[in-house]
Amino acid sequence: MNWNFSDFVEIQDVCPRDGLQMETNIISTDKKVELINALSNTGISAIQVTSTVHPKAVPQLSDAEEVMEKINRKPGVSYSVLVPNERGAERAIPMKADEWELMLSVTESHSLSNANKTVDEGIKEHERVARLAKKNGDIKIRGAMATAFGCPFEGKVPFENILYVAQAYYSMGIRSMAVADTIGTADPKLVYTVMEKLKNHFPDVAFSLHLHNTRGLAIANILAGIDAGVRSFDAALGGIGGCPFAPGATGNVATEDVVHMLDLMGINNGIHLRDLLETANELKQTVDHDLDSAVYRAGPSHSRLSTLK
Amino acid sequence: MNWNFSDFVEIQDVCPRDGLQMETNIISTDKKVELINALSNTGISAIQVTSTVHPKAVPQLSDAEEVMEKINRKPGVSYSVLVPNERGAERAIPMKADEWELMLSVTESHSLSNANKTVDEGIKEHERVARLAKKNGDIKIRGAMATAFGCPFEGKVPFENILYVAQAYYSMGIRSMAVADTIGTADPKLVYTVMEKLKNHFPDVAFSLHLHNTRGLAIANILAGIDAGVRSFDAALGGIGGCPFAPGATGNVATEDVVHMLDLMGINNGIHLRDLLETANELKQTVDHDLDSAVYRAGPSHSRLSTLK
Repeated sequence: MNWNFSDFVEIQDVCPRDGLQMETNIISTDKKVELINALSNTGISAIQVTSTVHPKAVPQLSDAEEVMEKINRKPGVSYSVLVPNERGAERAIPMKADEWELMLSVTESHSLSNANKTVDEGIKEHERVARLAKKNGDIKIRGAMATAFGCPFEGKVPFENILYVAQAYYSMGIRSMAVADTIGTADPKLVYTVMEKLKNHFPDVAFSLHLHNTRGLAIANILAGIDAGVRSFDAALGGIGGCPFAPGATGNVATEDVVHMLDLMGINNGIHLRDLLETANELKQTVDHDLDSAVYRAGPSHSRLSTLK
Repeated sequence: MNWNFSDFVEIQDVCPRDGLQMETNIISTDKKVELINALSNTGISAIQVTSTVHPKAVPQLSDAEEVMEKINRKPGVSYSVLVPNERGAERAIPMKADEWELMLSVTESHSLSNANKTVDEGIKEHERVARLAKKNGDIKIRGAMATAFGCPFEGKVPFENILYVAQAYYSMGIRSMAVADTIGTADPKLVYTVMEKLKNHFPDVAFSLHLHNTRGLAIANILAGIDAGVRSFDAALGGIGGCPFAPGATGNVATEDVVHMLDLMGINNGIHLRDLLETANELKQTVDHDLDSAVYRAGPSHSRLSTLK
């Protein structure tokens, strides 16, 4: 591994969407807006704000319009909305998000369970979504691939599955893709191998990694991603999120844990850890339970390493 | 990073010593013996059984003699005892441990706080301990370096401090050394840099890493250690241990989390994860609190990835 690279690493905080959607208590719109505004002021470059998923499927995000309208959009920060289908796309158009995130499962059974569609039906629908984005001001799109590192129904996932969906996104003109470890079964070698292959197949695509820390491997998987040349990662403040398919499992990798590691390694990421930890403190009050973040619990290394300085 | 190496990676479980010593409830000798015997049957190659630290300093380990006498010593497994000083060495001689672990802080203030000695006084004392080991059947010695990646009193640690203590151990004839992240402040780049330098300075020394997961970085630090050529790691079943200097901090990296990652990456380590998880289950009853182990909580990836197989 090249331990001395000087590239910028970009983090998208997905806490307001992927984190909050798992919370059983409904969080008020104002609290969501506060959280997103506070995140905007940490120096972060991208936030996944909400989703236009059907309100019956995810009641927590039913206030998507209101949240998008009320937040202060800070210049330089990209505000993304997860758009699950054509109907969601039509709902998303007036929101004027900086980016739409599409999501396709790379396995048939997860696609059927999650979206009630086959992979090919999902692709067909997303082609229509991509056309809607194009027609409405050429909204940027990121194509996410769920269950890329393991499927709760099919087990190990052949690389061909990932390639198939990536090729479909590519054909829609999408040049930004996220590879997701939906149930937290990836390991560093698998991450490295998959990302290296994808980068070789699509040298003009910017790849992100979306990793869950279910088995404690997310930070090591990020390191493997960096080694494979990935420079963009999803993370969620406080490590909240969880996974409906893995009882007792932890959620997204915590943004503050990722930033903390990058800071220690001298990797430029633009985020102020102190602001992030203050925002995590507010998040803890809002969700009213412990956060799954090592650095939030123990404090950053530098607070310990500069005790007498 | 070379993701395809085929070397064997060795784990020493330090739960019975570094883990249990932080437990506030005294664990019975029989429970300790059961734990060590169960660990012996997981395929692990080394266990740190106990310490001859003064019983007043660590009452939990005051039954060191009895534990060492009662355990079943499985051929092929190395049973180590932490020997803190000359008096502890004399106590350790009749125990017939396979290995003595010595420990020196690499910073003056931690040495004074932990051992009530300057670094040089500690070295002098350990020279006498090394001679005792030589005289009594040439007992194997591993020299550990505490606070190598950060000191609770002095902050960042210059590499020269580590080099100074490593040189002292080397002069005593010691060719096995452990570098310890006592307060969990190491990061992957620091681990890689320090271990690469040490290996260059002492090409004939076998280096281990002893890492705490206080800030969620231990698994990534192990990966960095592997990249630097380290093939031996300490870990504690259930991730128990904690650190008296970091309130709320987590303990040693969990053995099951390390083995789980190595297994997924196809790195041979000889340990049966299933046996380890069963032993962790017993440990949880014994210590009567939750374990700090992601894989214990969520189950291994392969249990998820082979759902339908």
